[in-house]
Amino acid sequence: MSTSPDNLFCPEQNFYGPDSEKIYIDGSLHPVKVGMRRIKLSKTYTLHGTDFSSFPLYDTSGPYSDPSVTIDLHKGLPSTRDFWQKNRTDIEVCPGKNPSPMNNRTPVRAKQGKSVTQMHYARKGIITPEMEYVAIRENQQLEEWIERFSSNGSSVKPVTPEFVRDEIAKGRAIIPANINHPELEPMAIGRNFRVKINANIGNSALASSISEEVEKSVWACRWGADTVMDLSTGKNIHQTREWILRNSPVPIGTVPIYQALEKVGGKAEELNWNIYRDTLIEQAEQGVDYFTIHSGILLDFLPAAQRRTTGIVSRGGSIIAKWCRAHKQENFLYSHFDDICDILRSYDIAISIGDALRPGSIADANDEAQFSELKTLGELTLKAWKYDVQVMIEGPGHVPLNLVEENMRKQLEYCHEAPFYTLGPLVTDIAAGYDHVNSAIGGTLLASLGCAMLCYVTPKEHLGLPDKNDVREGVIVHKLAAHAADIAKGSPSALLHDKLMSSARYSFAWNDQFNLSLDPVKTRQVHAESSQQNTGDGTDDHFCTMCGPDFCSMKKSQEVTGK
Amino acid sequence: MSTSPDNLFCPEQNFYGPDSEKIYIDGSLHPVKVGMRRIKLSKTYTLHGTDFSSFPLYDTSGPYSDPSVTIDLHKGLPSTRDFWQKNRTDIEVCPGKNPSPMNNRTPVRAKQGKSVTQMHYARKGIITPEMEYVAIRENQQLEEWIERFSSNGSSVKPVTPEFVRDEIAKGRAIIPANINHPELEPMAIGRNFRVKINANIGNSALASSISEEVEKSVWACRWGADTVMDLSTGKNIHQTREWILRNSPVPIGTVPIYQALEKVGGKAEELNWNIYRDTLIEQAEQGVDYFTIHSGILLDFLPAAQRRTTGIVSRGGSIIAKWCRAHKQENFLYSHFDDICDILRSYDIAISIGDALRPGSIADANDEAQFSELKTLGELTLKAWKYDVQVMIEGPGHVPLNLVEENMRKQLEYCHEAPFYTLGPLVTDIAAGYDHVNSAIGGTLLASLGCAMLCYVTPKEHLGLPDKNDVREGVIVHKLAAHAADIAKGSPSALLHDKLMSSARYSFAWNDQFNLSLDPVKTRQVHAESSQQNTGDGTDDHFCTMCGPDFCSMKKSQEVTGK
Repeated sequence: MSTSPDNLFCPEQNFYGPDSEKIYIDGSLHPVKVGMRRIKLSKTYTLHGTDFSSFPLYDTSGPYSDPSVTIDLHKGLPSTRDFWQKNRTDIEVCPGKNPSPMNNRTPVRAKQGKSVTQMHYARKGIITPEMEYVAIRENQQLEEWIERFSSNGSSVKPVTPEFVRDEIAKGRAIIPANINHPELEPMAIGRNFRVKINANIGNSALASSISEEVEKSVWACRWGADTVMDLSTGKNIHQTREWILRNSPVPIGTVPIYQALEKVGGKAEELNWNIYRDTLIEQAEQGVDYFTIHSGILLDFLPAAQRRTTGIVSRGGSIIAKWCRAHKQENFLYSHFDDICDILRSYDIAISIGDALRPGSIADANDEAQFSELKTLGELTLKAWKYDVQVMIEGPGHVPLNLVEENMRKQLEYCHEAPFYTLGPLVTDIAAGYDHVNSAIGGTLLASLGCAMLCYVTPKEHLGLPDKNDVREGVIVHKLAAHAADIAKGSPSALLHDKLMSSARYSFAWNDQFNLSLDPVKTRQVHAESSQQNTGDGTDDHFCTMCGPDFCSMKKSQEVTGK
Repeated sequence: MSTSPDNLFCPEQNFYGPDSEKIYIDGSLHPVKVGMRRIKLSKTYTLHGTDFSSFPLYDTSGPYSDPSVTIDLHKGLPSTRDFWQKNRTDIEVCPGKNPSPMNNRTPVRAKQGKSVTQMHYARKGIITPEMEYVAIRENQQLEEWIERFSSNGSSVKPVTPEFVRDEIAKGRAIIPANINHPELEPMAIGRNFRVKINANIGNSALASSISEEVEKSVWACRWGADTVMDLSTGKNIHQTREWILRNSPVPIGTVPIYQALEKVGGKAEELNWNIYRDTLIEQAEQGVDYFTIHSGILLDFLPAAQRRTTGIVSRGGSIIAKWCRAHKQENFLYSHFDDICDILRSYDIAISIGDALRPGSIADANDEAQFSELKTLGELTLKAWKYDVQVMIEGPGHVPLNLVEENMRKQLEYCHEAPFYTLGPLVTDIAAGYDHVNSAIGGTLLASLGCAMLCYVTPKEHLGLPDKNDVREGVIVHKLAAHAADIAKGSPSALLHDKLMSSARYSFAWNDQFNLSLDPVKTRQVHAESSQQNTGDGTDDHFCTMCGPDFCSMKKSQEVTGK
């Protein structure tokens, strides 16, 4: 097994094609520079009186899409956020720690008794650089367009830094941004922002190396993952995470119990609070931005889980359940929840409260076990908020389409509007090999109703560990779901994106279609292959091989309507 | 270009693996034999007191999955339905016609002034062999399970032949079954039956040969297409259709205006009723089971279409619009609608009334043009029903998720509960390369609300002509959508299928998981590849490479719950 990512995927500068350029927008409150990718369009599209000759995309690829940045995966990305933080008086260097050999930076933490979370500042009325960054990022430079839209009766307005602050103060949104992850480009998870997606990576005991996982994490954010969870469970778990964090412009989440379990040789019953706490601190100092913690599964809920078709399908949940049964004691992640919050607030790590009892089959959806735990997640939310810890709530799982809405309604009700972060839901159990699609179906509906972030599912779900192609497929298909949910929620920028795409389609501007599509590499390639039998690369054709020139409806439609 | 399917995909007898066997269920009213595929399970699953050691699948593959049938694509499939029809007194041989060189059968039609449609018989209280066939088929031999389910408060009951008759009499369901398609295995399209899917095939002027298209049609029904539309527009259009029909156990639909347009050299303005009528009769005699006819687009609606982002995106619709503009006359498919119905009732061809003005972009969804036409489709439905012609209504297109429900509601209201047959809808415009997923998202929701059949979309949509892999991907993903909609509608057999799958998953019965999945070939292959690094083919493992043995939640869950 390789322990160094020497053979890493080298980011091509031309990954997105020649019509994509990297731009940066300066903040006005803070010295932030918000990166976007701007697509140059081949012509000017006039929509409702506004001219568009380019379109700025919300961009998760960070420095990887900036040709002026030299990427050295052994050194990691530039530590942009350190500069914002440099005059802070509420943090200190962790005593007795050495700098990371990668970014030469010693971990920091809050001074004793201080809270350094975004929620802490938000509640004090302070707009942080992270909040301003998010506001600029969410607007995609489309403030004018959004204003015009909102004057036409839409309730959507451009995002202001003050709005971000308010949403975070209320607990309706989070910015996962560990103070030890200076490479991060802040982003918000909340239902009044763009719907986000997470990509899971991580080696298992059976397969894959560090370099493969770092490659997958870079790859995932290039395709559009808003956050990445490192679910590694094999050897080299610390080192893998270090490489991933130092090279990640997006928040990194983990499930710390996986590493804690490695420390006790895989024996769940040998876990204890001390080992778990040390693991939290180890990962906190590395810069993990959010932790999945299964604090909500209680002894009382186990009998209901036992009656199920598929029992407990959360890995973390099943570990805790095994510990609880062995010790006949309440979940130590529940009994030590205050201690956990105390650690999280010292680094600004968001908690993603795990749904250990999420349904793993249609038969188990919306059952007693699931909703009992969800109520407990709501109680824990209030407790975390007392510590100013940012919270999101994890959700199912497998849920038939007719029961999806109830999940959203109960989550909002029980969990006090904390952001919902779900896996799918998958709307049937029989779609192995195609579970990415299955998840996108349930995810689109749930996100359109208010779910803030979708965890991707890849075609390998239920069958094996995803490879790079699976990661790409999973990311794109869930970006599709997230975007479709934004459309359903009436997002003016999402609607504009679609309108530009359709205008390009109607005017046979093939390059614009490729660039505006979710996967420009694939669309360009598929169209070129289809056009090969014809002439050239097809980018000048006023038809495609699907219908051919005589049966192209758009061509005929233009002849009829004269436009 | 090859004109003979010599190089055809040869159906492997072992296509579905060794655990799939072909069975036939006899009718009690008629000499029908209903084919199904029964999956042998590796163990007996006891669910709610009932033992399952096998599971019968609704099967669209016809004789291709029966190892005892010799397939000769030059002769076509056995003419099973001819036997049912042999004593009929209401049909006659079409005068002056020769037998088809493939099945040695001369086309028949209704005697002068007679109607031979399923609706005609249904309204007279007659249960046809087709109706009984459908009833047996829909139940999947699960009558007892369904009864038990319905005694638990579900309104779903086993399908009886009388129920099928009643649904057809009311126009709520159709059985597309041209009397000249004796190779057909009847199936029903209606919202009180399983949700169905259609696969489009057909060469364009630019690409593909007859053999490729026949291969795709066989391939599509092997993967689960309930009907196939032959949208060929190139040369050899008659011969391609003959090969497809003679080898198709599923209903074949066409858009006759495509062939009519070929007859006038591709010039829409040179079309006329006589050419169109002759085309209808030519295809009727060949055995096409349903026609898409764009009778609902009227001159009055064109200005609204002109204001759109993407105008008219229906191929047939754009041809008619061009004709209307050129002649400054009303759509001849509207003015000759009675003549059309007179032909259709003579062969029992269902009409799929085309939505020429379906939205081709999110911006155009649910607009005036679309709903004006939908109202007209409702008027035409009533007119067709006067002739006892079976009707379904075609639907969008591109519709944001939040506007999907309105489509179903208005369709039911305007079109008097005639079955709805939709393309997607796609819930965003920017998913080129992944439009099969896009379509499955909108399609699942629409079908869960009552849409009876989903037309598949392949990954090539908007980019080029689908190849065999695209056909498979499109079919499976839309079967997923249809099944998920059945689950959402509370179908006891669909829920049982999922429950068996999840039970197999929880007990690590890998072969059962493969066989119960939508694509056994893919699941088996992916799992084997993932397990290669491990030992053997992984079918005996009590974990998979996704999590590895120490982190398998199901394994742990069993240890905890003791089951």
